[in-house]
Amino acid sequence: MDFENIAKSAKSAALEIADIPAELKNQALFEIAKELENNKQEIFEANKKDLEAAEKLVELGELSQSTFNRLKLDENKMRDMIQGIRDIAKLEDPVNKKLLVRELDTDLTLYKVSCPIGVLGIIFEARPDVISQISSLAIKSSNAVILKGGKESVNTNKTILSIINSTLDKIEGFPKNVLQQVFSRDDVAEMLKCDKYINLIIPRGGNSLVKFIKENTKIPVLGHADGICHIFVDETADLNMAVKIIIDAKTQYPSACNAVETMLIHENFPDKDKLLAALQLSEIKLIDNPDTWAFEHGDTTLAFKTVSGLDEAIEHINNYGSGHTDSIITKSIENAEKFMNKVDSAGVYFNASTRFADGFRYGFGAEVGISTNKTHARGPVGLEGLTIYKYKLIGNGHIVKDYVEGTKQFHHKDLI
Amino acid sequence: MDFENIAKSAKSAALEIADIPAELKNQALFEIAKELENNKQEIFEANKKDLEAAEKLVELGELSQSTFNRLKLDENKMRDMIQGIRDIAKLEDPVNKKLLVRELDTDLTLYKVSCPIGVLGIIFEARPDVISQISSLAIKSSNAVILKGGKESVNTNKTILSIINSTLDKIEGFPKNVLQQVFSRDDVAEMLKCDKYINLIIPRGGNSLVKFIKENTKIPVLGHADGICHIFVDETADLNMAVKIIIDAKTQYPSACNAVETMLIHENFPDKDKLLAALQLSEIKLIDNPDTWAFEHGDTTLAFKTVSGLDEAIEHINNYGSGHTDSIITKSIENAEKFMNKVDSAGVYFNASTRFADGFRYGFGAEVGISTNKTHARGPVGLEGLTIYKYKLIGNGHIVKDYVEGTKQFHHKDLI
Repeated sequence: MDFENIAKSAKSAALEIADIPAELKNQALFEIAKELENNKQEIFEANKKDLEAAEKLVELGELSQSTFNRLKLDENKMRDMIQGIRDIAKLEDPVNKKLLVRELDTDLTLYKVSCPIGVLGIIFEARPDVISQISSLAIKSSNAVILKGGKESVNTNKTILSIINSTLDKIEGFPKNVLQQVFSRDDVAEMLKCDKYINLIIPRGGNSLVKFIKENTKIPVLGHADGICHIFVDETADLNMAVKIIIDAKTQYPSACNAVETMLIHENFPDKDKLLAALQLSEIKLIDNPDTWAFEHGDTTLAFKTVSGLDEAIEHINNYGSGHTDSIITKSIENAEKFMNKVDSAGVYFNASTRFADGFRYGFGAEVGISTNKTHARGPVGLEGLTIYKYKLIGNGHIVKDYVEGTKQFHHKDLI
Repeated sequence: MDFENIAKSAKSAALEIADIPAELKNQALFEIAKELENNKQEIFEANKKDLEAAEKLVELGELSQSTFNRLKLDENKMRDMIQGIRDIAKLEDPVNKKLLVRELDTDLTLYKVSCPIGVLGIIFEARPDVISQISSLAIKSSNAVILKGGKESVNTNKTILSIINSTLDKIEGFPKNVLQQVFSRDDVAEMLKCDKYINLIIPRGGNSLVKFIKENTKIPVLGHADGICHIFVDETADLNMAVKIIIDAKTQYPSACNAVETMLIHENFPDKDKLLAALQLSEIKLIDNPDTWAFEHGDTTLAFKTVSGLDEAIEHINNYGSGHTDSIITKSIENAEKFMNKVDSAGVYFNASTRFADGFRYGFGAEVGISTNKTHARGPVGLEGLTIYKYKLIGNGHIVKDYVEGTKQFHHKDLI
């Protein structure tokens, strides 16, 4: 099937899955979890094939060891992956929620109701657990999805999706073609052009993948390219708190997008030398180089800069940051409020580690990704980010002429 | 000033206006209304210049009479324009609303707070009332804006914006460069490329303007190109209700985007001949031509088609419609529900005219436009569509390590 036909069938599937009952979706998710568990040996075998091929590439220096590690499915990852599906099944249904019920006039009632977006295009790198996670999120939110995984995990991805789809085939009333997979670079190019059928692209991968996608499509893209997070140590910061938060934000998981990259220190902070000394005793590698101010290190390197005060800190962050997550450490509530209002980022923190920027930590139950967009969804995105809404208006022969001519008046009474 | 500098200064202005008090914004709006009133003669004179130039173009056949009419500002339009500004001032502040307050753990509280999007690019055709309306909406929602109006209304636009901006200059604490205007086609081209500084483009104008913009930018665009609305007359429709609704939806304002373009009739509807006869007695011009199924007539022409039933009607609408507003006329609640769930449009109506699709009629108090997008905002968009949100997290030295290692647990308690 060529891409256009895949996309077209995804669109049909999206229209069909849009209003299936929540119970059917949850049943499907529990069945998928069970079948993946029953067939996990098959998945491990497919993963072994991928790992063997990848091992050669690592030896040739064509694949990084970290990509290889992400590719590997073990019993723990498999258990988490399956548990993740069951967790999504247990969440509240994100569609068909009444967001507004307003009586416009007698017998003329407006309902704003959450509904799926339609067709999602997901492009991800070598992490085979993404395929079951995104499939589950799509089912739960009644969206159809076209998946394009990394070529390194092709056998694992094929096996997992084939188990999921044969499970869905057996469920009465569950539409066909909700979950489809493509494999080639040409398919990616087609996907990015296919704004007729695809409503949202979600890239799951590194900076260069996301940048490439954002630059090559007119379809809305949900995600972030960079995670250049800052911590500003204000004049009145508590030294011990600053040390504790910065070490956490930099070293707890240095390659995470919400890890801190640059520390800004108020020039009048009295404990500056003690702070730097304490950080130097940790794993952190401090550097003082303006060339790195718009750079995501992804390791334990931390840039630092002395600033004249809060205003310069805010300006620096709005200039060099990526609008992801930035934190102030201070005893001044006034400064904290100004920082949180003026810093134009998805997350603005006060005396807390930037590493909290995460859908699970925010209590969303599932995470689609973290967005630095200024429209639709921003910050950690839960299932709600895969929905939009429609307006249902129920009348009894109502016409606009009556209201324009004044024989009738709107009374706009909210019922919820 | 070249476009890049205009956009850069708009970005700075956006960061400044983001957190000014609601009172200051409302004061600005009331002052603007007063100053426009005080200086209306100056505006009428500028408008006269535009009208004189336009008149010549109409004579040469280079400008339509309807564009000329839209260009003309009279006492009534001026009064409505000024009243519109005062109405916006009286609306609830759309920013700084707490959308979620969640205690993640003791002393660690997450706030999801509405905030402005940033810089809006507005491209509109010859309607000088748009400039004061969009300026007011931008101020109210704390966004900066770059306006590009139609060349036919350049004198009127310049005069109105200059009165608005000199009013703002006199208001202490109101940031500079919140409202800027550009004039050339080159500026439009620059605006569409300027995704570094501009966060949202809103086109206000005809189909070809909107299509051009959507095809030539990667910045999110809020709006709709087509308004191909349908009414499906089901088997059990009430004849009189059908006649009344269809005449309203087609003739009350035929060039509106929410006017009906195609009527679908159930083949077993017993009163089909009576319905067609009644419509023929009205101003409506019925046509039966498949070539017009994806066409917005903009006049009293109404295409019609007989369909085998609800399923074909839904399929037709999802194929040929523009996802704007579609209505079913029926006595069957079951069919109405299926129609409203399966038709993938911003507005899905049951026994009501499609002409209700409008921000004022929905009770939003102001309308930014009507969106057929599947992300961010859909249907009639009020001030809320000019906002997004940010997450504020207030801790007391909290670090993620404690939660990863299990020495602390999230309790995720919603406080509102």
